[in-house]
Amino acid sequence: MNQILVCLSALHPIHQTEIAQAASALGYSVSFCNEAQALAMAPQAQILLTASLPVIRAASHAQWVCVPSAGVEAYCASELYASPDTLLTSSSGAYGVTIAEHIIMVTLEMMRRRTEYLALVGQRKWQRDLPIRSIHGSRITLVGTGNIGQETARRLRAFSPACICGINRSGRNPEHLMDQVLTLASPDLRSCLAETDLLILSLPATTETENWLNAERLQWLPSDAYLVNVGRGSTIDQETLIRLMKEGHLAGAALDVFATEPLPPDDPVWETPRVLVTPHCSGNMTLPYTVDTIVRQFLENLERFSQGLPLRHLVSRSLGY
Amino acid sequence: MNQILVCLSALHPIHQTEIAQAASALGYSVSFCNEAQALAMAPQAQILLTASLPVIRAASHAQWVCVPSAGVEAYCASELYASPDTLLTSSSGAYGVTIAEHIIMVTLEMMRRRTEYLALVGQRKWQRDLPIRSIHGSRITLVGTGNIGQETARRLRAFSPACICGINRSGRNPEHLMDQVLTLASPDLRSCLAETDLLILSLPATTETENWLNAERLQWLPSDAYLVNVGRGSTIDQETLIRLMKEGHLAGAALDVFATEPLPPDDPVWETPRVLVTPHCSGNMTLPYTVDTIVRQFLENLERFSQGLPLRHLVSRSLGY
Repeated sequence: MNQILVCLSALHPIHQTEIAQAASALGYSVSFCNEAQALAMAPQAQILLTASLPVIRAASHAQWVCVPSAGVEAYCASELYASPDTLLTSSSGAYGVTIAEHIIMVTLEMMRRRTEYLALVGQRKWQRDLPIRSIHGSRITLVGTGNIGQETARRLRAFSPACICGINRSGRNPEHLMDQVLTLASPDLRSCLAETDLLILSLPATTETENWLNAERLQWLPSDAYLVNVGRGSTIDQETLIRLMKEGHLAGAALDVFATEPLPPDDPVWETPRVLVTPHCSGNMTLPYTVDTIVRQFLENLERFSQGLPLRHLVSRSLGY
Repeated sequence: MNQILVCLSALHPIHQTEIAQAASALGYSVSFCNEAQALAMAPQAQILLTASLPVIRAASHAQWVCVPSAGVEAYCASELYASPDTLLTSSSGAYGVTIAEHIIMVTLEMMRRRTEYLALVGQRKWQRDLPIRSIHGSRITLVGTGNIGQETARRLRAFSPACICGINRSGRNPEHLMDQVLTLASPDLRSCLAETDLLILSLPATTETENWLNAERLQWLPSDAYLVNVGRGSTIDQETLIRLMKEGHLAGAALDVFATEPLPPDDPVWETPRVLVTPHCSGNMTLPYTVDTIVRQFLENLERFSQGLPLRHLVSRSLGY
């Protein structure tokens, strides 16, 4: 049984050809299916590339499941898998480029008063004297220093910020991209946040990151700081954030992820001043580079799997990332 | 007569103190005036820091005029000056940081379908599947490689474009920031523009740059290319651009400068599809760094002037930049 099952609508014919050729060279057969077909074929599959929970659940003999997302909290429940040994890999690494571009865009939109300028332009008014701010000289804190944090740091560095501080689980400084790194519960968090102009969150949803940006930490930020969240909504105390912003705290917040998604039409977030809402579009599969990378990483891992080597982007289902 | 006259409303008290102290140390007296006061004092001034044409015209004994802008086409007429020897310096160098940030912001807004997402969010709709593009892998052409082009190239490089081609008057490659440099009328322009995903113009208004992006060159661009203009409106055949865009040419154009400014309320530009209008706000004095740099450069030049050294950012009034 060397059956690969691919159920992923974002794939183009060229990706299917690539996968089929690589699989065949390694002695695998591969089926490209919609979800209904995939459900029927799943029990025969050894390897899966899919985002579909029902298909994963139906794959009673799967040895390896690759999901196209970077965040995997939905895929960690042990009851999804026939065996505790079933490997799960994510497509972490496919989203850093597009999410970093989103982060830079919304940061500049907040600093350069884009919402107000758009309102003026909408009325065909020629006003150009709104005071603006800059990434140049800003003190930046990146909470989460994985692929997203790293790609963001690389780009931000070219804008000459005053400093970039990373905050992560290990305290390690990936590729020396940060000026300094603190752990998620460091005693130095308070002084770091108090000296942050721009706070960027790209944390996964785990028990350790839940509510990380709580009321206390939110209040440590300067009242004119900017906030960007592209990780998961669960990492911010959203209710307190909204209350504080309504009271005048923070110069702006660009939120791409929320406690509940889709964001309900009557959610107070929509009408909170200085909040830029985006519909979890910072890092989906709408950029061709992202899908190309998902496929490339899957095929690199397929070769490793066929050789019995450890897989890259392997998820610890117990840690949740 | 060692009189410096400063007439510039963007200055903060701290800048005035800086200028007063530096001037005093070099044996100059300095007056900070509004325009009415400055007009009265202008005939006594040896040195001017001002954007005011009437004040410059009234300064019949000025030896050196420093203007706070980077573009100086308004300051080149010889009848403005008492003597052909009156030196004119610009504040080129003060705007690259802020304009580069504007360029990156509007480029990402076009590539990431920001206008459409804002319309969806305005209706509280949760749609997230619009196909987007990326600076990563894009072929970029920078027309104008002065301070703005250089600061832009530094930042764009961090986004991993496929290539950055510079186009300028001399054919020189400033600080090796470009992969290739062509002159403004190079025979290779056609093939360069035909392979450009993102064309960025930061040209000054001179006789040589007038209408540089004419109908022929506009049509050499791929129909899905993006255009950004932060230089001067006169460098584009605006009427043809608007006609071509209405016919479907180009994926987007972010225009900060126009043939006529303020852009008249009934100008067809406002309602041209895929055009992002900004009110010449990419590089004004609303960013504190810009004003700080104007003052720093003026004081560096003041020291050079007092020592009889050649001034930096000197303008050739005949060339117009």
